Amino acid sequence: MTKDEINLPGPLAEVTAAFERYEAALTSNDVAVLDELFLIDPKTIRYGINENLHGHDEIAAFRAKRPATGLERTLERTVITSFGSDFATAMALFRRTPGKIGRQSQTWARIDGNWRIVAAHVSVIPDAVDDA
Amino acid sequence: MTKDEINLPGPLAEVTAAFERYEAALTSNDVAVLDELFLIDPKTIRYGINENLHGHDEIAAFRAKRPATGLERTLERTVITSFGSDFATAMALFRRTPGKIGRQSQTWARIDGNWRIVAAHVSVIPDAVDDA
Repeated sequence: MTKDEINLPGPLAEVTAAFERYEAALTSNDVAVLDELFLIDPKTIRYGINENLHGHDEIAAFRAKRPATGLERTLERTVITSFGSDFATAMALFRRTPGKIGRQSQTWARIDGNWRIVAAHVSVIPDAVDDA
Repeated sequence: MTKDEINLPGPLAEVTAAFERYEAALTSNDVAVLDELFLIDPKTIRYGINENLHGHDEIAAFRAKRPATGLERTLERTVITSFGSDFATAMALFRRTPGKIGRQSQTWARIDGNWRIVAAHVSVIPDAVDDA
């Protein structure tokens, strides 16, 4: 691809809508939508706050047993960037616990017509170090 | 793209070579190569172990002041997946400090002919939780 294919309006709008659907599902613990939006594939990986999940089966098992409360959070500095028509990254900081800052990164691909998360990574660090 | 465009041999080999070049540069602190392999763009983001860096300038400034020793690490469960001809994810666990496990996720794109990291996230968590 060429650099001028970054952030074409159509793909960027589509993946932004998918990202927002994911965020709504996450904070309301809509497990069916969360499972839908991660690509059903053994190669799909999600590094979570406390766990490393390899394959959609492990991710779905984690969702199924996850507590359904305390999921609200505030996003900051969300940066969604599309590359060509079928790929995108979604990076965001989030706050849920005072004194800590979360980081969520997702890689999205449009496969067979559907935008899906193919890789994700979530971590939380002390907030103070971000001011260094 | 279609699902059968995942892990085409050519793109997978190319991005794997780029990933290995990055890993060698990281552990030898070859700052020039590290700076080269992250896309020069204000939208490039790297969430590090202790810092959140937005834009290639912030990433390069971090590299310039980073200690040059103690960078060796062992990778585990590296999973590189290409999507079509120009996009890939590289996910790996790593060990450097006893009792902890690192997670490194990278999103690569081939832009104007060169494979570049467009987003990355590195975090370290206690190892024990991975066995949960």
